[in-house]
Amino acid sequence: MRKPRNEHDVVQSIERAFRSTRSSRLTVSLGDDTALWRGSGHKQTLLTCDWFLEGTHFLGQKHPPDAIGWKCLARAVSDIAAMGGKPACFLLSLALPDRLAGRWLTGFLGGLRRVSRATACELAGGDTTRGEHILIGITVLGEVARRQAVLRSGARPGDLVYASGTLGEAELGLEQLRRLPTLPRPPNAALRKHLYPEPRLALGQWLAEKRLATAMMDLSDGLSSDIPRLCAASGVGATIDSSLLPLASLKDRRRALALALHGGDDYELLFTVRPGKAALLPGEFRGVQLTRIGKITHGRKILLQDAKGGATLLGPGGWDPFRTS
Amino acid sequence: MRKPRNEHDVVQSIERAFRSTRSSRLTVSLGDDTALWRGSGHKQTLLTCDWFLEGTHFLGQKHPPDAIGWKCLARAVSDIAAMGGKPACFLLSLALPDRLAGRWLTGFLGGLRRVSRATACELAGGDTTRGEHILIGITVLGEVARRQAVLRSGARPGDLVYASGTLGEAELGLEQLRRLPTLPRPPNAALRKHLYPEPRLALGQWLAEKRLATAMMDLSDGLSSDIPRLCAASGVGATIDSSLLPLASLKDRRRALALALHGGDDYELLFTVRPGKAALLPGEFRGVQLTRIGKITHGRKILLQDAKGGATLLGPGGWDPFRTS
Repeated sequence: MRKPRNEHDVVQSIERAFRSTRSSRLTVSLGDDTALWRGSGHKQTLLTCDWFLEGTHFLGQKHPPDAIGWKCLARAVSDIAAMGGKPACFLLSLALPDRLAGRWLTGFLGGLRRVSRATACELAGGDTTRGEHILIGITVLGEVARRQAVLRSGARPGDLVYASGTLGEAELGLEQLRRLPTLPRPPNAALRKHLYPEPRLALGQWLAEKRLATAMMDLSDGLSSDIPRLCAASGVGATIDSSLLPLASLKDRRRALALALHGGDDYELLFTVRPGKAALLPGEFRGVQLTRIGKITHGRKILLQDAKGGATLLGPGGWDPFRTS
Repeated sequence: MRKPRNEHDVVQSIERAFRSTRSSRLTVSLGDDTALWRGSGHKQTLLTCDWFLEGTHFLGQKHPPDAIGWKCLARAVSDIAAMGGKPACFLLSLALPDRLAGRWLTGFLGGLRRVSRATACELAGGDTTRGEHILIGITVLGEVARRQAVLRSGARPGDLVYASGTLGEAELGLEQLRRLPTLPRPPNAALRKHLYPEPRLALGQWLAEKRLATAMMDLSDGLSSDIPRLCAASGVGATIDSSLLPLASLKDRRRALALALHGGDDYELLFTVRPGKAALLPGEFRGVQLTRIGKITHGRKILLQDAKGGATLLGPGGWDPFRTS
């Protein structure tokens, strides 16, 4: 493949990859000063952005380019799912070393296009530049019907706490990725979860439309880091029951529990439901398991309860790029 | 100043700096999964993002932190001005080395807040992480009345080409910044133009509302790089008259001309006007000079005409991060 000469060529590679995915709601997308987008008058706009940086969020030598393309957009779309919204379009900010502007870029754009199609989230524009390392910034614009967005701040004492899917699997996948010299093909469940997370869009929208979730967020940094954020926004505490957590299938139950509590990158939904509405929740929604994992409490403490009824304080052990460890 | 411990502290510094700037159109901004924004039903949404990277777009050792804060947002807002739109809110993606999370961050946020207020563009959210270098990504969301956005593609043969302000001054400012051991206080005009560019919002909106501009863009990479983009989008060529260009005040006219043709970062507006409407354009709009600099032509060539009537091809000499020089 020809190596791009300059910024214009990189932009053209991106345009070619996404040419067939345009809708009529983007009047102008690539190639003008800004994208021009026609919103629905009766909806609210959701806006989110996410870094995805080599060395911090992925390993340039280990992560396949198409998984990097998939994951950078999937995790930003997951924030839209966590509000109960629908993605509409995204902006791609990309800084690349010259040597990656050929085959690597093609692989990256392939993964990006797959998740763009799977989630109906069109490329609307972006900015490209040269960089020593791969830097990716994704902005997603989405929509939600008025007064239907599910915030982090709506949990009340007595609400039940739920999680979708299994917890800790993505962290297990990352451990395997670091350890294995080559990746198994097809990748196993843990690797798939780490490399190609699926934003829980249908579930988030359903919970919002049916007004079942009182508060919601996505699990990106790990349960022990994320649930304090939901509780702080709601002014409440929580008790998590360790015996209820949907763990990854591992022989070592203690390790599976630690992964479920502190492992990042799961992109499952964490949400709360009034006890009176719990009966309306199925055990599974379109193939995704829904598990009650605890309860919202008065006070501000986050407690972990074990099978014998003992409870300990649950401190954040998940991922924080600024933590000095 | 206390050094932030973790990502939460960096986010809190940002929240504190912007607490007083909230409007009622942002239902949720910082602190949830996404921002929630209420658009006007009869308007179109403008969406743009821009990198601002240490080493590529600014010099960490030379550029004052408040100028970095000012400029990163000002240049993204300039893209909204170039469409004839109004900015509404922005997202800040910030990666920082730990040692800059105190005083440097405060200076940076001060400059960012000043331009946020000056352009009525609120902080809606963002993403922070740790990085070895300063990485800044800015996304701006704006609005424009339906069918009023001025694209790059509307220029027709015979249209007159205009530029706002003076050209080349920002590049002159960059040369001084590189050369001078300390910056003069207050900075001179060239340094001010380089460090604190003013997006031409009022001018862009006026040109769009009055339907005076047939095509428009902002000059970010230099006239010789940018005008080919406008011409390519419109399927036309142009002849630029070197004797008409609004140059920086320099004794060396050849140098001033080279700066005006190839110097980047001016963030002035480049626009085209039908000859029959040229009489409606004032020589100055709210203190900003408007200068006719050439004409749109059939064919695709970009020519530079000198005072004696001779013409040479004008090749892109402006800024391109991917160019191998």
